[in-house]
Amino acid sequence: MANLALMQKLTVGAPTKIVLLIMDGLGGLPMTEGGPTELEAAYRPNMNRLAAEGTLGLSVPVTLGVTPGSGPAHLALFGYDPIHYDIGRGVLEAFGIGVPVGPQDVAARGNFCTVDAAGNITDRRAGRIKTEAAAPIVAKLAQIKIPDCEVEVVAVKEYRFVVVFRGAGLSAEVDETDPQRTGVPPLPALARNAAQRPADALRTADIVNKWIAAAREAIKDEPLANALTLRGFSGDPNLPKYHDVYKLRAACTAVYPMYKGVSQLVGMDVQTFAGDTPADEFAHVKTIWNDYDFFFIHVKPTDSRGEDGDFPGKVKVIEQVDAALPALLDLKPDVLIITGDHSTPAKLLAHSWHPVPLLLWAPATHMRDACQEFGERACISGGLGRFQATDLMPLALGHALRLERYGA
Amino acid sequence: MANLALMQKLTVGAPTKIVLLIMDGLGGLPMTEGGPTELEAAYRPNMNRLAAEGTLGLSVPVTLGVTPGSGPAHLALFGYDPIHYDIGRGVLEAFGIGVPVGPQDVAARGNFCTVDAAGNITDRRAGRIKTEAAAPIVAKLAQIKIPDCEVEVVAVKEYRFVVVFRGAGLSAEVDETDPQRTGVPPLPALARNAAQRPADALRTADIVNKWIAAAREAIKDEPLANALTLRGFSGDPNLPKYHDVYKLRAACTAVYPMYKGVSQLVGMDVQTFAGDTPADEFAHVKTIWNDYDFFFIHVKPTDSRGEDGDFPGKVKVIEQVDAALPALLDLKPDVLIITGDHSTPAKLLAHSWHPVPLLLWAPATHMRDACQEFGERACISGGLGRFQATDLMPLALGHALRLERYGA
Repeated sequence: MANLALMQKLTVGAPTKIVLLIMDGLGGLPMTEGGPTELEAAYRPNMNRLAAEGTLGLSVPVTLGVTPGSGPAHLALFGYDPIHYDIGRGVLEAFGIGVPVGPQDVAARGNFCTVDAAGNITDRRAGRIKTEAAAPIVAKLAQIKIPDCEVEVVAVKEYRFVVVFRGAGLSAEVDETDPQRTGVPPLPALARNAAQRPADALRTADIVNKWIAAAREAIKDEPLANALTLRGFSGDPNLPKYHDVYKLRAACTAVYPMYKGVSQLVGMDVQTFAGDTPADEFAHVKTIWNDYDFFFIHVKPTDSRGEDGDFPGKVKVIEQVDAALPALLDLKPDVLIITGDHSTPAKLLAHSWHPVPLLLWAPATHMRDACQEFGERACISGGLGRFQATDLMPLALGHALRLERYGA
Repeated sequence: MANLALMQKLTVGAPTKIVLLIMDGLGGLPMTEGGPTELEAAYRPNMNRLAAEGTLGLSVPVTLGVTPGSGPAHLALFGYDPIHYDIGRGVLEAFGIGVPVGPQDVAARGNFCTVDAAGNITDRRAGRIKTEAAAPIVAKLAQIKIPDCEVEVVAVKEYRFVVVFRGAGLSAEVDETDPQRTGVPPLPALARNAAQRPADALRTADIVNKWIAAAREAIKDEPLANALTLRGFSGDPNLPKYHDVYKLRAACTAVYPMYKGVSQLVGMDVQTFAGDTPADEFAHVKTIWNDYDFFFIHVKPTDSRGEDGDFPGKVKVIEQVDAALPALLDLKPDVLIITGDHSTPAKLLAHSWHPVPLLLWAPATHMRDACQEFGERACISGGLGRFQATDLMPLALGHALRLERYGA
């Protein structure tokens, strides 16, 4: 908050270009005592050269000890306090499968469940029904029509799906219908005690309940999943936009829908491009180089391999990025930041709270530190120290000479 | 504040065990330029091994440059912002001598003073009357009975004593009676403009004034201390409890009353045990190992020797702890933190503001840094960096896999 207001006040136009290269879940851990992390194990001559020339640090995504999801972690990198700015689960889930959520839409995450003859829930996740078995049931839901509201239903995985309600006068102020236990029926959708537009909340709850009634009727004889619950009702979080706050024309180059979605929420443009490797992403950036000031590039598989517990696989992704880097450097960015949104150590098979290694290279303005390679341990003694991820955008803008002096 | 709310939201149960081993006043300074600190001078093979395997850092108890008392320093370690959560001086003083202060009680710190024939104060500390000389005067005070309220009076040291008022309907919203200067009489006890329960504050002030009148009458002919003042009226600060905020069953193993008292205020259990050495404390922890998730162990003499200016004595205490450590390690804690609540350099003969060396060892989740020994200088380049003491509990919980991911 405070940061954004200050940035809005201080940012000025400049002919400089900033690249933010995110390897998702970059931070790692040694698999064995005394061993290297994934990043330290990778052959990364280009990153090491940039590290020797530039300056390193460690970024803390949320607060010490706290593991972020991808949504909050990216918000933080983009300069938005993830405790203050909350993207709802329905919107995030929709982004994750590439379903758009517009400024007037309300998205919810749906779960299939099973109910007994009395209507009481017997399994809140419908026995974790297989994705293929859920597909025809989702198809039935997708055909439901209700008055005054367009509804889109899309399968996610196993028992999970997304519902987006579209139309004027909707509100996300609706409580979840999952009672969080078995032996009781799903709850009706109830309007929250909304401070703003309470009539819209009541109307939305009514629409949702009509859709639920039709949905229950449509799937009541399904043996694997004869009922459903909805949660995480959420709409466009109305985030401040990059061009307003930072005076940046910003573009997102990403393969996975969720990252495109979050980028759009902060006002970045997103184009489609051919291929899905880091080299393909850098080639795309070259095609739009003259049109933008800020380039967010997102590499997903570092996180995926970490979540798989695949240490060598994660190392290989980092090596692919390193090998492709010369093409990015040929564009001569004024500020290049290479980091992750959070750590995903293969050792833990999950996101973690460990601070994230970060490399800042800005030949006209950086302060070279003593570090000679890019890695978690090198970053501990890096010149940028340890800082909140929300401070990264101010650092980038400063190094790009895009911030006015504060005060006389 | 924000931290506690976030922890309450994210903490989950887990089978992991956390040990927080506090050597009170651990941080030190070299006695001579270029020399070692107390910790650096100690023979500490076990701590050094843990340092080499784990990760180090420096914790800041309150804010840079600010020296904490033991109360605020421990609150911070326990995750409670010591600026926001204030334990009153009366309560702290009572804890320090093992006098219980229950949820309905109000404690005050008493000072003996001397007054002239006109009732004006001539010495606010009664010439720092000796503890032995004060004892019979305190005994007179302890015999005073007043209606509707039980009063306990216990000597502390020199001119200081504690008064605890017990009974229903009391309030701590009473101003001190010390005018902070000589030549004027002690003030009457006045109810503060209390937002909550103003009638209780008025009633308490009345009870306190009745007790003061009886006390003045009882000691009016004492040549060394013929009057008194009361300050720091305070009750149970109603701190959030460990089991609510952190979902931890927590136990305190301490010898000194004050640390038991502060631990109880945050919901830790306290048992008595035989002996008072670090080895005795670790042996006690073994007996309760299966009953708790979190073990706070407090070693006092590091601070006492520091306040004495006894550098070799403080070194010896650290060496006792190190020698006893294998018994603690045999319990196989998942997370072991070794640190102090603040610094008490023998060179300064007092608490100080210097950040406190900290060792975190969590073999399943820690990131080993390059440090090879446990000491103030090693901790400067530790992997945890420098952080607020209030961030220690989130770090401990993260490393114990007791925090859910924040956001999707």
